[in-house]
This record gives sequence, structure tokens and C-alpha cells, in this order.
Amino acid sequence: MRVLGVDPGLTRCGVGVVEGVPGRPLTMLGVGVVRTPVDAELGLRLVAIERGIEQWLDEHRPEFVAVERVFSQHNVRTVMGTAQASAVAMLCAARRGIPVALHTPSEVKAAVTGTGRADKAQVGTMVTRLLRLDAPPKPADAADALALAICHIWRAPAQNRLQQAVALHTAKATASKGRTA
Amino acid sequence: MRVLGVDPGLTRCGVGVVEGVPGRPLTMLGVGVVRTPVDAELGLRLVAIERGIEQWLDEHRPEFVAVERVFSQHNVRTVMGTAQASAVAMLCAARRGIPVALHTPSEVKAAVTGTGRADKAQVGTMVTRLLRLDAPPKPADAADALALAICHIWRAPAQNRLQQAVALHTAKATASKGRTA
Repeated sequence: MRVLGVDPGLTRCGVGVVEGVPGRPLTMLGVGVVRTPVDAELGLRLVAIERGIEQWLDEHRPEFVAVERVFSQHNVRTVMGTAQASAVAMLCAARRGIPVALHTPSEVKAAVTGTGRADKAQVGTMVTRLLRLDAPPKPADAADALALAICHIWRAPAQNRLQQAVALHTAKATASKGRTA
Repeated sequence: MRVLGVDPGLTRCGVGVVEGVPGRPLTMLGVGVVRTPVDAELGLRLVAIERGIEQWLDEHRPEFVAVERVFSQHNVRTVMGTAQASAVAMLCAARRGIPVALHTPSEVKAAVTGTGRADKAQVGTMVTRLLRLDAPPKPADAADALALAICHIWRAPAQNRLQQAVALHTAKATASKGRTA
């Protein structure tokens, strides 16, 4: 199973591709960050994120895309940008019929460290260990994207297969139902 | 000046096209709602909104797109959906090099009714009057989209021309600056 993890953000959007199945060693296929200039207009930043995500989808052909679920308990301005960046990532995946899964930060931390309250350093350490890397991926957004992908792979495989089938089936149904009046 | 106003939402995304210049009677060229099924997956809903917005851009070729600026003082879940729908609208416009302007609900209400605290009915009444329609557009999202377009037309035309030039110029610059590392 090949998963692209996306840690959404307007300035830095972490991306990481992991391949594997539960109970076997995992393999990192790529990791990086899609960046957009802080001083650019919002619409143009979203276009830059779209291009970046499309490049990662083209290159790695993931079967699933896992995106961090956005909450609004944090800084209002940051959350809006994060929600907008995540929308672009979800749009890019869904357009290709790739199922999108959302995982909360706590779920991701619990998956890779055993506790939902782990800090950035702990997540980085475990991602390094689980993917047998020489050093923790930098910046933290990149490590978080890999953790998202790992979290997704370790969910019940049957559930993933079901979601994949449903996504492919409903892509067409939604297209015909969503109409312009 | 031809403006597409977008009142973003996941379930109902209001769209309205108005043509005109400040100080002259305005003309409505089209109004409607892009709907997506509530029970569909989020990624697929965003794809449906993208298709809907693209259709409106194809049909009406607006020079500007005006989108309601999203705030998070309201219901958290609604705001996330609104932010995500607005991201898709901004993305569609920016991809074509069409400048995107954001206006707050208060700015829009003040532009068409004279007060930033006007209610939905008052906005509907003034939109009907200003566009010389037989009845207020329904649903309210459609009327709000027209109000957004009117608000944008009534901003300083010089500022709009400047923004248009900057958007076209920076579209390429942003594409080359936003890189995947």
C-alpha cells in the first residue's frame, strides 16, 4: 500500500510517501515540502500548492492520500490557511479518484509513538526509526507528513480497501449529482 | 467591468455575475447556486464545487472574482467547510490569472444597503433594486453572491486595474518561486 501523507499549510506543506503493510517494515519513497511565498496573493499561493501536490501525485502514484484533519482551537488566521491548503490537497486527490483519509494530530502521534500527547521531537525520532532513516526528516512538517502516511497504513487494511472501492464508485455519482442551477 | 461574486459554502455555493461601472446602472448576467450532496465525501464535494465554478468562469469570462472573506467567529464546522469551498473558488480564478478580491460580509452589506449590519432581507431587497430584478434572487446565497459582485464593482476602479495587472504579472513569478524541495 502506497500512501502520500500531507501536513497542510500555506507557507510549508509537508509531503511524504510511504509504502508498506501492517506488521512489515515500511519504506519511505520520498519526503519534502511544498513552499509558497508568504507575500504572494492567497489565490496564487493555492495555485502553487496545487502544482506541488500534483507533482507528488504524478511522481509517486499513491493509492491513498492521508491529510491532517484541521481543528480551529489554534490561531484563527493559521487555521484558515491550513483549511484552505488542505482543501487543495483533498481536491487534487479526489479529482484522480484517490481516496482521501483525514487523521487528527492525536491519532497520528498515538500511531507512531504510542501516545497522543507526544511532542514534535518524539514523532521525528519514531518516524526516523520506523522508516530506518539516518536522521529525522527536516522540517517538522516533512516528518509529520511521513507520520500521517504511517498512521494510515496501520489502519485496518480491510477498511482501506472498502474506502478505495467506495471512492472510485462515488466519484462519478457525485459528479452527476453536484449540479449548477 | 464583469465580476463573478462567490458566496462560498460546501452545501450551497452562491454565484452571481454582474457587469457595470460605478455610477451607472448595473446588469445581472447570471445567478445560481453550486450544490454538493451533504452525504458525499469531502474531497468529492470539493471536486463538484471546482466543476461548478469552472462552468461559471467558462460561460461568463469574468475579469474579477469577488469572494466572501471567511471569519471563524461562527460555528467551527461550518467555518472549515466555508474556508475550504472558498479555497476552491480562489484556486479556480487564480489558475486563470483572474484577480481575486476578498470582501467581508460587513463591507458587502454596507456597499449595497448603506449599513454593515443589514439583514438578509435588506440585502435581497437592495440587490433586487440595484439590478432591476422582478424578485429577490433565491436562495439567500445567490443574492449574497450578487451583492459581493456589486460591492466589488463599486470599489475604486483604478485599484481594480492595478490589482488586475499585478495578478497577471505575479502569476508566473509565483509559479517559479513556489518550489518542491
